[in-house]
Amino acid sequence: MPQHNTNLDEFQNRIGYQFNDINMLKNALTHSSYANEIKLKKVSNNERLEFLGDAVLELTSSDYIYRNNQMSEGEMSRLRASIVCEPTLAMCARSFGLQKYIMLGKGEELTGGRERDSIISDACEALIGSIYIDGGFANAKEFIEKFILNDLENKKLFYDSKTILQEVVQARGLDVEYEQISEAGPEHDKTFVVSAKCSDLFHVQASGHTKKAAQQKAAYEALLLLKKRNIDIKPKGKK
Amino acid sequence: MPQHNTNLDEFQNRIGYQFNDINMLKNALTHSSYANEIKLKKVSNNERLEFLGDAVLELTSSDYIYRNNQMSEGEMSRLRASIVCEPTLAMCARSFGLQKYIMLGKGEELTGGRERDSIISDACEALIGSIYIDGGFANAKEFIEKFILNDLENKKLFYDSKTILQEVVQARGLDVEYEQISEAGPEHDKTFVVSAKCSDLFHVQASGHTKKAAQQKAAYEALLLLKKRNIDIKPKGKK
Repeated sequence: MPQHNTNLDEFQNRIGYQFNDINMLKNALTHSSYANEIKLKKVSNNERLEFLGDAVLELTSSDYIYRNNQMSEGEMSRLRASIVCEPTLAMCARSFGLQKYIMLGKGEELTGGRERDSIISDACEALIGSIYIDGGFANAKEFIEKFILNDLENKKLFYDSKTILQEVVQARGLDVEYEQISEAGPEHDKTFVVSAKCSDLFHVQASGHTKKAAQQKAAYEALLLLKKRNIDIKPKGKK
Repeated sequence: MPQHNTNLDEFQNRIGYQFNDINMLKNALTHSSYANEIKLKKVSNNERLEFLGDAVLELTSSDYIYRNNQMSEGEMSRLRASIVCEPTLAMCARSFGLQKYIMLGKGEELTGGRERDSIISDACEALIGSIYIDGGFANAKEFIEKFILNDLENKKLFYDSKTILQEVVQARGLDVEYEQISEAGPEHDKTFVVSAKCSDLFHVQASGHTKKAAQQKAAYEALLLLKKRNIDIKPKGKK
């Protein structure tokens, strides 16, 4: 029995795009581990489509940022990076359930690959590439505008969370302390739990597959907490 | 007297594209050093357009590579890098004389900025961005296909020249020796001359603004020399 959802009609309804060639969609959902497993059938994996989709996403987000802001080149680059980075892309893809439809090899399935940000965000780029090939730039752009180019303020906050948090607490003469609480799981699939605390202001925990990812999430949680308490978390010198 | 050619009708004929809004073209040709110099007039430099044009170039070249090859993702990335890298982009831009039309500040002009690869390739990306905004994706794509996506075999050879040369001479049980011949010019604008030699096979020289760039050019010269003598320079294991 396959572990992935095979109902591609349902998936196409979810994303609001009907493929002319359903094989393009299947190609986008084929992780290399699955293609390797059944290699006698010569199924190709989604890496070529990912290469293409990455460029479609880059242009669409650059275009959107260029037209909607008067930011400098440096600020535009930073905002774009926050949109196309692995965790935020994976988050967007989960919003339409992409992870359930990815075809994975048994090994990847058993070690939790279906929930891994890297696999989900790569498949999301491949999906964008497949819509671009199947339906052209306009359809790919529409998909990206609907599912990826939203909630930009929070994505930016997440991406820059450690820097912003540092600025906020330093303005009060304080400092953030990050501490590793635990480290578990096998070498290729570790989970780190990290805490971030600052005097009486906050003490939060978050987990991630790297120490850095866990710290970033903890900083983000701290910022959300401060925001809830109406503490100003806008970086200094920015509007 | 301006040092740049101000005949933009001539330039538009050269590139085969007529702007609807000539200010877009002027914006693309404005280097930051020029914008800074006359900042009272609030002229914006070409960095925002460069940000956008870079993404247009990336998608157009990715699309071209995807459709014309069955390469793996890794090979496609390497070929794309060879197309969009600074020296090859600057070379393409020189083919239609872009450097003559760039508006530069006096300081940059005096220190040879008009012939600098980085300034020319940045302006080329800005030009692509300006055509994209002024005339849409199709016009930008046509420009890129005409002026950038050509001579790909040689660009690849140039980009990988040190690796390929190493493989060719190692196959004969030999080794390449690089030697720095001279280093001249002020700190921010050095010129390095480097030689590459290998037994009786070749002994060539080349110059560049970094030691690495000079070595790459020398390796490329050596490969061209070997090719002229009908020595096989195809990397091993590749067709």
